[in-house]
Amino acid sequence: MAVGLKQPGKLYPVLGLELATTAAGIRYQGRDDLLVIRLSEGANVSAVFTQNKCCAAPVTLAKAHMAESETRALLINSGNANAVTGELGMQNASQSCAELAKLMGFSTEQVLPFSTGVIGEQLNMLAMNNGIQSLVGPHSVGQFSDNNWLRAAQAIMTTDTVAKAVSCQLELGGDLITITGITKGSGMICPNMATMLAYVATDANISKQNLDALLMRGTQSSFNRITVDSDTSTNDALVLMATGKAQAEPLTGDSLEGFYQQLESVLVELATSIIRDGEGATKFVKVEVSGGCNQSDCSAIAYSIAHSPLVKTALFASDPNWGRILMALGKAPVESLDMSLVDIQIGCVSLIEKGQPAPSYTEEAGKSVFVEEEIHIHVALNQGSERFHVWTSDLSHEYVSINADYRS
Amino acid sequence: MAVGLKQPGKLYPVLGLELATTAAGIRYQGRDDLLVIRLSEGANVSAVFTQNKCCAAPVTLAKAHMAESETRALLINSGNANAVTGELGMQNASQSCAELAKLMGFSTEQVLPFSTGVIGEQLNMLAMNNGIQSLVGPHSVGQFSDNNWLRAAQAIMTTDTVAKAVSCQLELGGDLITITGITKGSGMICPNMATMLAYVATDANISKQNLDALLMRGTQSSFNRITVDSDTSTNDALVLMATGKAQAEPLTGDSLEGFYQQLESVLVELATSIIRDGEGATKFVKVEVSGGCNQSDCSAIAYSIAHSPLVKTALFASDPNWGRILMALGKAPVESLDMSLVDIQIGCVSLIEKGQPAPSYTEEAGKSVFVEEEIHIHVALNQGSERFHVWTSDLSHEYVSINADYRS
Repeated sequence: MAVGLKQPGKLYPVLGLELATTAAGIRYQGRDDLLVIRLSEGANVSAVFTQNKCCAAPVTLAKAHMAESETRALLINSGNANAVTGELGMQNASQSCAELAKLMGFSTEQVLPFSTGVIGEQLNMLAMNNGIQSLVGPHSVGQFSDNNWLRAAQAIMTTDTVAKAVSCQLELGGDLITITGITKGSGMICPNMATMLAYVATDANISKQNLDALLMRGTQSSFNRITVDSDTSTNDALVLMATGKAQAEPLTGDSLEGFYQQLESVLVELATSIIRDGEGATKFVKVEVSGGCNQSDCSAIAYSIAHSPLVKTALFASDPNWGRILMALGKAPVESLDMSLVDIQIGCVSLIEKGQPAPSYTEEAGKSVFVEEEIHIHVALNQGSERFHVWTSDLSHEYVSINADYRS
Repeated sequence: MAVGLKQPGKLYPVLGLELATTAAGIRYQGRDDLLVIRLSEGANVSAVFTQNKCCAAPVTLAKAHMAESETRALLINSGNANAVTGELGMQNASQSCAELAKLMGFSTEQVLPFSTGVIGEQLNMLAMNNGIQSLVGPHSVGQFSDNNWLRAAQAIMTTDTVAKAVSCQLELGGDLITITGITKGSGMICPNMATMLAYVATDANISKQNLDALLMRGTQSSFNRITVDSDTSTNDALVLMATGKAQAEPLTGDSLEGFYQQLESVLVELATSIIRDGEGATKFVKVEVSGGCNQSDCSAIAYSIAHSPLVKTALFASDPNWGRILMALGKAPVESLDMSLVDIQIGCVSLIEKGQPAPSYTEEAGKSVFVEEEIHIHVALNQGSERFHVWTSDLSHEYVSINADYRS
């Protein structure tokens, strides 16, 4: 039921980065579920991880490895999150990295592990090892290619209904630069199937320090603004890689800013593709709050609306039951809200003006915007100049089915 | 689909309080939707109201009236919340009170208005006025009785599937004292204070100051501990009335405490009856968090679990998908959580011991407790001595149906 989501378009290779996938049979049958990304020497890597305190073994290990060594490979499996798996889970993640590292000629710390799938079950290490052997073992031949982005996007899917990938090229200082990224996720959290993973690479030349800064900034305006169900996975990770192969000199100043603008649009497109493919989603909804005294107020109100089960079911029903939006606005933990100043629009239809029902509003007009697949809710607080927005989906029967049936 | 909820048992009359109901046709047809409660002179009344900043017109007005005068009557309608109805909504609420007051010989401020139902629509004043006339107008005869508690509970229902009422008697200092209460609510339930209406009365003799204190204390351990869907309604109100007719002297000291214990169990039973009748509920769930360093940590974790759509759908599926409970625990906004100390039990089955999967846990054992209608999730933080619990329900297809279809 993805909303306005097409199959990925052309995915440009990123110089200095190759990908290989295989069907290891970790959980799924008859499809790829293991991905290895190989980076050329000198590539810079930045990453952000879930804030969930129950983070998975691979998250803990990937952080530790990044702090110790230059990253040369990413090892990613779907079907099992290796989360809440205790010490054995840590051993399994570490052993997988060691196995891959040995066969590729790297140290264990140069491999970053990632997992997505069911929480609380141990990894099938026989399948993992067989998969690793088939990708990089002595009998593997010609598995790696810089043209494998689509296969990579498919290999990391869990309850996703569409492979999610975005690619673009830009010219900076006479160099043709590519940005290509993939992601998976169908909720900001997924139940048994944890998580959001995203891998974005470029062949631009960017220092580690600048790459970290770009990622922090880009995450705030993309992946940190999406919510399907308010649940934060144990495995979320977003990795940004810069191989530098397309440029002799590092990006700085205006060129770096130009690069960022393009990167941000790739991140936003990837992030919103998760919402468009949100579990059971029939609507793609932007909740925007403007005119706040501070951004945290705007954010609290936007999330209060985006997380409200009653708003979400009204959206599913295409029912202009806007009282629920007011309810969600009113319950937001914000001290300084002055309801008598608030305006609310849905699309181009005015619902509330200065805290009162808009005189021009009609049920018919409300219905006409609520039936749309893409809905824009705009709350103007008219108290200051700060703003925030978040993208979300509706709450449908399908959401309940997916999440009540996932393990069966 | 109420969970373990029976029709109310015997409801004892409260001396000094009479009730009358009628089918005014405000929204529903063929059922009572208007209730008037009449109090004898000298009764004390305490109330707590929704914290939602978009509170309804009757909430604003009831607060103002309580501050100005001794309350003699409550006017309660179902089917329309009179919320987000602007100035006309305030006029309508005020006019209804004035009409009732005139016919009963009170001042307008001696009447408290309450509404529950659809948000954002104006009250049908013709129906309201006709209803008021039929209850207290010149041609009304014998409508009021102290035996009308069940009819009252039925008249205030909206999406409730069962009328909710509790009654008990106790002897204090040789006086037989009655406590009888009714409530309604099934969705938009995350009281802060309450997302529902509740009216509890006693003929005990309790000073206004003591009554206020009892209500504050009782609310914290009952209505402020329930959540169906995390949504806080615009109209919540809990009213506690003490007519004093059963006793010559006001309750104090141990007698007052004895009364409170009984009152608290009435409030808890009423509050949990809302969860048992939660929209689409198939499970009645107590989430208990113990061993916290402070109560707000315990509360944050309990609500994080109770509000998680993924936990709630797993409960609906009777699926021992306990990774979701860990996920919800880990995402709670708590600074000092030490996962390596945490134990988790569901019923009598141990899931997690010191942050790791319990060695004794089996899928079969998990399933055996998850299939139960009543489920107790106990998270032991083992870091301190504070505790908190909250009652909630699951998230079912029926919840989506009810809330996607409610206005149609």
